[in-house]
Amino acid sequence: MPQALSVLERVAEVCDFGIKFRHYDWNCETWLRTGQMMPKDGIDQLSQSDSILLGAVGFPSVPDHISLWGLLIPIRREFHQYVNLRPVRLLPGIPCPLANKKPGDIDFWIVRENCEGEYSQIGGVFGEGTPSEGAMQTAVFTRYGTDRILRYAFEYARKLGRPHVTSATKSNGLFHSMPYWDSRFEAIGKDYPDVRMDQYHIDILAARFVMSPERFDVVVGSNLFGDILSDLGPGITGTIAVAPSANINPERAYPSMFEPVHGSAPDIAGRFIANPVGQIWAAAMMLEHLGEPEAAGLVMQAIEKTLENPETPRTPDMGGTAGTRELGAAIMQSI
Amino acid sequence: MPQALSVLERVAEVCDFGIKFRHYDWNCETWLRTGQMMPKDGIDQLSQSDSILLGAVGFPSVPDHISLWGLLIPIRREFHQYVNLRPVRLLPGIPCPLANKKPGDIDFWIVRENCEGEYSQIGGVFGEGTPSEGAMQTAVFTRYGTDRILRYAFEYARKLGRPHVTSATKSNGLFHSMPYWDSRFEAIGKDYPDVRMDQYHIDILAARFVMSPERFDVVVGSNLFGDILSDLGPGITGTIAVAPSANINPERAYPSMFEPVHGSAPDIAGRFIANPVGQIWAAAMMLEHLGEPEAAGLVMQAIEKTLENPETPRTPDMGGTAGTRELGAAIMQSI
Ligand SMILES: CC(C)[C@H](C(=O)O)[C@@H](O)C(=O)O
Ligand SMILES: CC(C)[C@H](C(=O)O)[C@@H](O)C(=O)O
Repeated sequence: MPQALSVLERVAEVCDFGIKFRHYDWNCETWLRTGQMMPKDGIDQLSQSDSILLGAVGFPSVPDHISLWGLLIPIRREFHQYVNLRPVRLLPGIPCPLANKKPGDIDFWIVRENCEGEYSQIGGVFGEGTPSEGAMQTAVFTRYGTDRILRYAFEYARKLGRPHVTSATKSNGLFHSMPYWDSRFEAIGKDYPDVRMDQYHIDILAARFVMSPERFDVVVGSNLFGDILSDLGPGITGTIAVAPSANINPERAYPSMFEPVHGSAPDIAGRFIANPVGQIWAAAMMLEHLGEPEAAGLVMQAIEKTLENPETPRTPDMGGTAGTRELGAAIMQSI
Repeated sequence: MPQALSVLERVAEVCDFGIKFRHYDWNCETWLRTGQMMPKDGIDQLSQSDSILLGAVGFPSVPDHISLWGLLIPIRREFHQYVNLRPVRLLPGIPCPLANKKPGDIDFWIVRENCEGEYSQIGGVFGEGTPSEGAMQTAVFTRYGTDRILRYAFEYARKLGRPHVTSATKSNGLFHSMPYWDSRFEAIGKDYPDVRMDQYHIDILAARFVMSPERFDVVVGSNLFGDILSDLGPGITGTIAVAPSANINPERAYPSMFEPVHGSAPDIAGRFIANPVGQIWAAAMMLEHLGEPEAAGLVMQAIEKTLENPETPRTPDMGGTAGTRELGAAIMQSI
């Protein structure tokens, strides 16, 4: 996070605009101390900002479903950040785990539904302690929620000038939710006759990310499917440490939130060797959203130029021995 | 299917045992003609066999959720085939989409829960035609169903002599079902102190299949997660056309079923260019299950030897121009 903030300060100076930061130390330590991930009026406090830059959250001594449902997920939902937009792009200077791929070969976008679907609080454990014990979990797909994310995907494909949307489904296994998703995909698609439509079951789609990533432009998926695909996507480009995630309220009625795709990596916490690129790229997406496309472009150029340079100090996940600060500083200075 | 049957006949001859086949043409054409994928007493008819070899099912003019829930899924459930066992193995002679991998580097097993979980008929569409329309789908994880699949995974890891089980979870998003799954994984694991346990969220697990497939031995997952991982697995080994799938009732109270992982590939139906290896490998798993390990071994050797040979006629998915029959015959003749 400190690296991303330095980059933001630098680019604001270069492009001559101001950014005011408010810092909130809401995290798993807060929970251990207070029993809450954020204060009761946390959402109110955040609502006074234009946007939110979030660091990765989670720590082994705090159950995941507590740390996430106490901070990240309420922010996504309270602020109607129903779009989760994530690039899958092979950057220069990062060895690709796929054979014979170069930058340009892998370059597409994942549009993930971010407020409903499989991530639901509906359900629970039944018959606890008896032989018939079990758990149920209900996925909810509203037409309202489904249509708006599909529409965003079509609009985004048009805006990119790459009019092709691939939908992730599993209508052959998930008997109710996915045939419904498919029917809305077909219905909304009718409004975009210029956009080519494709759909794949999530299982074969995951395999195709590996076997033929070139074929994708915009991939739209439910909350769970989008989640899986947007880790797998960065996986095929070499490291999930560089990928960003934009949680967007397209109507701009609420602040949007920008974060790295990677988790909090507790195994290396405090060692100052985390790759800062994901957080910095997230900051670039934030600048774009805030109406500073020039600044966003400068940050992206700085990332690419820095990674391309063989002399650049690299963090261990990229095969180097440098620390977070050195790589962050290299990017910052190249702006 | 005809190729797999020839291989079975040949190996039965070589190993001197008999196999009796009963053929059932239950498929999407049956449904178009009769409105049913199989006759009313279909399950009864099948129950008279020792095991079932199934070809891929599905055709565009029949909705997937009808063709699958009318044949494949009822067979899995009525016969309590609660284990879906799928190898992920890089075979010789198949170009790997991952950089710098050779046979031996990718070699692990997926144990998928096959009878409950996310694949459920509980749910439906609400408010149809109104603005509040939507769909719900409830996943059901019973302790009975969860424990038995986890236990199978631990036992299988022991049997392989590779005492290491990785569990696929998503407890940070799926608030009820996956924390429950995790708690059962922990509980059952206590009975297997000699087996190393790992767990990953499904999103990062998918990425790790690409970034570090060497680290896996046995991966256990729910119906949906196992489904995704067992297409992605074959994806990283080059072609999903060669992978088999065993739907097992471990107690042998009912017939087990063996099928290729790939779908029915309607785009190439009737062109005789489908890769027969998945179906033949499925037949090898069936022989193993039926207590003919020598015959199973001969079929596997024949597959590997044939693929290794650069002169072997290859189907288009493997970059060749040969047909199903030529590749099938090459394997059969090498037994
Ligand atoms: C066809 C479909 C219902 C099936 C499944 O999802 O179980 C298939 O993908 C498989 O993996 O066997
Ligand atoms: C941490 C977790 C709840 C989250 C999610 O699944 O949404 C993460 O995996 C992500 O993709 O942002």
